Amino acid sequence: MLKRVHALGEWLKQEDIDVAVVTSTDNVFYFSGFYSDPHERLLATVLFPEQEPFLICPQMEVPSARQAGFEHTVFGYSDTEDPWEIVKTEIAKRTKSVKKIAVEKTHLNVERYEIIQAAFPEATFIHAEEKLNQLRLVKDEVELQKLKKACELADYAITVGVNEIKAGVTELELVAAIEYELKKKGVEKMSFATTVLAGANAASPHGSPGSTKVQKGDFVLFDLGVVYEGYCSDITRTVAYQDVTDEQIRVYEAVLKGQEAAIAASLPGVTCAHIDTVARDIIKHAGYGDYFTHRLGHGLGISIHEYPSVTETNPLVLQKGMVYTIEPGVYIPGNIGVRIEDDVHITEQGAEVLTKYPKQLQIVK
Amino acid sequence: MLKRVHALGEWLKQEDIDVAVVTSTDNVFYFSGFYSDPHERLLATVLFPEQEPFLICPQMEVPSARQAGFEHTVFGYSDTEDPWEIVKTEIAKRTKSVKKIAVEKTHLNVERYEIIQAAFPEATFIHAEEKLNQLRLVKDEVELQKLKKACELADYAITVGVNEIKAGVTELELVAAIEYELKKKGVEKMSFATTVLAGANAASPHGSPGSTKVQKGDFVLFDLGVVYEGYCSDITRTVAYQDVTDEQIRVYEAVLKGQEAAIAASLPGVTCAHIDTVARDIIKHAGYGDYFTHRLGHGLGISIHEYPSVTETNPLVLQKGMVYTIEPGVYIPGNIGVRIEDDVHITEQGAEVLTKYPKQLQIVK
Repeated sequence: MLKRVHALGEWLKQEDIDVAVVTSTDNVFYFSGFYSDPHERLLATVLFPEQEPFLICPQMEVPSARQAGFEHTVFGYSDTEDPWEIVKTEIAKRTKSVKKIAVEKTHLNVERYEIIQAAFPEATFIHAEEKLNQLRLVKDEVELQKLKKACELADYAITVGVNEIKAGVTELELVAAIEYELKKKGVEKMSFATTVLAGANAASPHGSPGSTKVQKGDFVLFDLGVVYEGYCSDITRTVAYQDVTDEQIRVYEAVLKGQEAAIAASLPGVTCAHIDTVARDIIKHAGYGDYFTHRLGHGLGISIHEYPSVTETNPLVLQKGMVYTIEPGVYIPGNIGVRIEDDVHITEQGAEVLTKYPKQLQIVK
Repeated sequence: MLKRVHALGEWLKQEDIDVAVVTSTDNVFYFSGFYSDPHERLLATVLFPEQEPFLICPQMEVPSARQAGFEHTVFGYSDTEDPWEIVKTEIAKRTKSVKKIAVEKTHLNVERYEIIQAAFPEATFIHAEEKLNQLRLVKDEVELQKLKKACELADYAITVGVNEIKAGVTELELVAAIEYELKKKGVEKMSFATTVLAGANAASPHGSPGSTKVQKGDFVLFDLGVVYEGYCSDITRTVAYQDVTDEQIRVYEAVLKGQEAAIAASLPGVTCAHIDTVARDIIKHAGYGDYFTHRLGHGLGISIHEYPSVTETNPLVLQKGMVYTIEPGVYIPGNIGVRIEDDVHITEQGAEVLTKYPKQLQIVK
């Protein structure tokens, strides 16, 4: 935590920024270890080039914030106090004049922006995200251990789901069974709404589970993740029920080949664009290029979708410590849908695959 | 839907506002019937004083938007197009000069605000929320039917949870059992993270379920809700397991008496402050005033927490068609926690209670 605060401070110094007001739940957690969503109430970590940071949160959350391990001052406020007055006063105590303020422009709302503008009328506002994304891009050892645990639980969730497949079971029943078993294992939160899609529904990359029943010959697609101590996993597996056609096998093998090639190509020094293209070319070559309608993957960590976006055009170079998803898919509308997704960690030697559920085409009997 | 669009148009005319750019998921749904969270991608309903509104969404969502029943133009954009260019061009087509723009200042982020500012450099920006809150405050018949159905499902969820209580069952196992049965009934989404707290945990108004086991003499608190066709319910019940002390009974009866009095006091023409005070005075009189640490309730509809906030100080006058929660609680730290919550609908005759699970102190054997 101290290292992160220090790294941001270095950037503020370098860019001549007087203060950073960080208000998103995920970035507050990154700098403080305190995860809380106080909805319309203010929660912020305020950081400086030289001075110690402080945290501000609703009064009743102060003990939890301290317990979370934040080593600097925590200010609480009651429902009758204006928290922005505290922020303003404490910033003024620490800096003579405020000319440049970093805020999360993709997160901060206009109402709060106008309050900060009014408090510091001479200040210009800088995008904090650029630096925050860069800091969060490389995971440290503690973060990795949490991500690995989240991935283990995601593997377990797939095992549960696949074991529950039987004739007539609905998508929502499979979701229910998975989440039930995970809660029994102590999982408090999924990283997003668990998705199970059967048959033609799997061909809709943004479908949501309903009362469709699993039938012989269906592909059943599971896309899910778990939050473990603030860190998210994200896995997709597609299995067949009782029977498959030759075309289903062809689609499955094309996606799997593309996915495995992108994993193999994931080395420090290559670009995001490169690994997307490796998978895409294989899928194109198999004749399904038009049906691979989304990016290869996305960064993963405190947020389920975080920087970077692994697309055909992103020139970002992979580096040691990055964690992201590799999840090509082929969706032939009204017919066949397959997606296979793993979470990978970049090491000097290449990609370490954190999700381990088998990927050979499985035909559930 | 047309009526809502018309009502907003009247306000725009009256306030001399040229255009409203509505970007929150819930308000887009309110005006279009289309519920979608496209994350970082743009989704907006754009409304005018006289002209027809339009909707803009990612290309792949256009069919769903149309299917949802939006009767006006829908613009789709691909990942390589800039949706703001479309918004800008279409606004310019419909209005000669743009001097006043209404936006949701508590929702719109700074990045998007700066884009709109740059597109219309002469415009001033108005808080759209004031009018949007006022419109959504009064529910129509269709909305009411959906809320009633959501409340029925919430009652069922409590029944499931209470039936699952047994010695040694954990909080998370109870959550799992409830959500499993609801998914089997076709419920796709809970309105917030289902909360079950046992024993001393129930005394923490912001606690979250964990591996604590239910023991003889515990209060078990259930707080949960269901989304039905876009509308949320919210219910809390507290039941005892096997045994209760006299003090537990005293706390329970004080909360129940306060809650029922606030329901009885809920009549068109009285203020939010009045009904909060009715419940609070009863709980104070019983000696537990210091332990009732939150507001009486909140508006309920498309959002789980919506306007108004039912507090001791809110002078807003209740009117026919409002739906809100009444949920007093007493939390004696480390010891006893009780909250009882219903959703009510204001009619000419007073409050119609939509959640119907019994409230007499129940001792599960």
